[in-house]
Amino acid sequence: MSTNVRIGIAGLGTVGAGVLKIIKEHGDLLEARSGAHLTVTAVSGRDKTKDRGVSLDGITWHDDARDLADDPNVDIVLELIGGSDGVAKDLCVKSLLNGKPVVTANKALLAEHGNALAKLAETHNAQLAYEAAVAGGIPIIKALREGLAGNAISRVYGILNGTCNYILTEMEETGGEFDAILKDAQDLGYAEADPGFDIDGVDAAHKLAILTSVAFGTPVDFASVYIEGIRNVTAADITAASELGYRIRLLGVARRTEKGIEQRVHPCMIRHDTTIANVNGVFNAVVVDGDFVDETSYVGRGAGEGPTASAVVADIVDIALGRHTPTFGIPVEKMTDIPKVPVADHVGAYYVCLTVYDQPGVIADVSAVFRDENISIESLLQRGRSKQEAVSVILVTHEVQEAALVRALGKIENFTHSVAKPRMIRIVSL
Amino acid sequence: MSTNVRIGIAGLGTVGAGVLKIIKEHGDLLEARSGAHLTVTAVSGRDKTKDRGVSLDGITWHDDARDLADDPNVDIVLELIGGSDGVAKDLCVKSLLNGKPVVTANKALLAEHGNALAKLAETHNAQLAYEAAVAGGIPIIKALREGLAGNAISRVYGILNGTCNYILTEMEETGGEFDAILKDAQDLGYAEADPGFDIDGVDAAHKLAILTSVAFGTPVDFASVYIEGIRNVTAADITAASELGYRIRLLGVARRTEKGIEQRVHPCMIRHDTTIANVNGVFNAVVVDGDFVDETSYVGRGAGEGPTASAVVADIVDIALGRHTPTFGIPVEKMTDIPKVPVADHVGAYYVCLTVYDQPGVIADVSAVFRDENISIESLLQRGRSKQEAVSVILVTHEVQEAALVRALGKIENFTHSVAKPRMIRIVSL
Repeated sequence: MSTNVRIGIAGLGTVGAGVLKIIKEHGDLLEARSGAHLTVTAVSGRDKTKDRGVSLDGITWHDDARDLADDPNVDIVLELIGGSDGVAKDLCVKSLLNGKPVVTANKALLAEHGNALAKLAETHNAQLAYEAAVAGGIPIIKALREGLAGNAISRVYGILNGTCNYILTEMEETGGEFDAILKDAQDLGYAEADPGFDIDGVDAAHKLAILTSVAFGTPVDFASVYIEGIRNVTAADITAASELGYRIRLLGVARRTEKGIEQRVHPCMIRHDTTIANVNGVFNAVVVDGDFVDETSYVGRGAGEGPTASAVVADIVDIALGRHTPTFGIPVEKMTDIPKVPVADHVGAYYVCLTVYDQPGVIADVSAVFRDENISIESLLQRGRSKQEAVSVILVTHEVQEAALVRALGKIENFTHSVAKPRMIRIVSL
Repeated sequence: MSTNVRIGIAGLGTVGAGVLKIIKEHGDLLEARSGAHLTVTAVSGRDKTKDRGVSLDGITWHDDARDLADDPNVDIVLELIGGSDGVAKDLCVKSLLNGKPVVTANKALLAEHGNALAKLAETHNAQLAYEAAVAGGIPIIKALREGLAGNAISRVYGILNGTCNYILTEMEETGGEFDAILKDAQDLGYAEADPGFDIDGVDAAHKLAILTSVAFGTPVDFASVYIEGIRNVTAADITAASELGYRIRLLGVARRTEKGIEQRVHPCMIRHDTTIANVNGVFNAVVVDGDFVDETSYVGRGAGEGPTASAVVADIVDIALGRHTPTFGIPVEKMTDIPKVPVADHVGAYYVCLTVYDQPGVIADVSAVFRDENISIESLLQRGRSKQEAVSVILVTHEVQEAALVRALGKIENFTHSVAKPRMIRIVSL
């Protein structure tokens, strides 16, 4: 690539504006690090007149972002539009077809179409880079694809959604319930008006599907990710977790087992003295278990203008310097289809919260159900004592297969003294 | 580079044996990730007959490691001998002169001769890679040089020596004093028989000098690192830290200030709820403050066969794939000499422990000294009450210049009621 690298940016929202700022403020630094003079030559956004705090003078404006793919003055295309289809996808496909490297922050796109795009990138010898798509400013894709290249990975897991982590941290610190804290988060701008994408775990699942592919050398398989969000986590769960020596975090977990790969996003209990349990607020974190390196952890901001733009610019520098890596770490043809293990086959310890009337024999009945399913109980604790009102019974199991636990909870739900649907939270094994 | 990459290993100690194991166990994986078939073709070690758990059949043995540089069947030289001079240095120089890429885990060599070696690497267009030299298995060099390339770095600091962190963690957990815990650590193999290199901070300082160069684009300047080890940390300090909401860790800190760059290794108090304060035992951690990405943290094993070999192999994969980066992130000619700030100019908060006779007026005298040096006190606490025996007075200052604090402590030491030399520990600002 020439020593003058011309960049086209599609999408001038938060991240696009951040990239413009970095390139403007750090021109000399980036030239020293990349060996290239970086210039933004073309952009495309929704509104040409909007003040983004950065001048667009002398930069070509394209009304249709797809035209960046054909602009002869653009060497690298940044796709910062978002969305798994539509213009974002069109632009990436067209750019790669033209042999133009693409940098994207679009996790939905990669989770849904990553395999096809990686194939296209290889066929046309154009790099497809996406450090910003997972865990924002944390260079986790680089760490996994390159820094840990000497390891077979057995597990990668992390806090992949800052909104959920903010809500769970606030619930812990204030004792508040989910709905109230979500409302506060929305008022503060930490959660969207339509928060489902974040709090129902979809965003984290997109990122997890990408991490899984890189970690295990297998095609991206978003459809098989088990997804459960944080709406049902209660203040009582958080208190119970704390008493048991845990914290509750929404984790994405990809794990290699004898049966294949588990991919799951759900609330987890993690021992309170681990690095990841101490990741608070909007921060993200990823933990990787490699066979030679053992455990390494990565913590930083998972979203926002600066962190996300930082990751985009790192990809630009890689491309400018000619540092090339296959999209998901190995060439598409060398990828292995590894079976995905359904969550029902997951084996682990569980926290269980039952809500029952405090009648004689209820504990005996519960215990019998667990015995019949061959589930060993590590601890059992009844909260309060009241024949009029429901009480909570909190259980921690030893390792058990999820299907057995689900069967047991189904039986308990049908007890005459059961007041509410039993709840459970998976405990992370360390 | 050819698709068959031939590796020569100098030094068959722990790390060398680990590299042999990874290449043997992960041949296919490494081929998929590097696009090259990696073979160890030549080695050199102290004892040809020693059992290393890996076969050396079919591998050329060199009695003199330097001969690896001239072996026509070696494409990449691994220098795993150690030591800042002698054979290790000779081998690196000779290999680079021959245009052969070098991978090393040798922090002392890079701290002492990094600039000359980087220049040599550039002149002869041969890569000099050293991920394993800093923080073992944590891919921190890659993160700093590449992953955070879009940022001006304002500070990098970390737990860079596992032996010290193990000792400090054990002191915290057991309440024991330094000498006893060091003895245990030696018995367990976590500390060397001659522990000075670790516990006096030299090893951490080597690593910090390298991090400083990469973070700030300035030549390596080990000579200007302020170094203070952990021998003087007492059980009482650890207890006091805990009560104040801190933990004590040996940190290497490189910070850009208006006056230049501070480089210092010394025990620090860090707020107990930070990621780095929760890094225990032999683990290492590095925190980087970048202007766009904000704070990112990296945690993992800083030593040992597997983690160090993992880092070495990552460098090999980079070289095999042709991913090239200037040694310290930018070409030598583009580096800037930045003044180093002496520790006396450091401005920060301090923990101070005085040992005095509990006579009327002692607190007034101490307070007057601090007032005269314009040092503002955040908290002051006297431990115990005894006219016969010495008591401890524990102070925390607001931000103050170190020179002023040192003057104040000198005056206090000369008090008639002073029993021991006042001690201080720097507090990390967040």
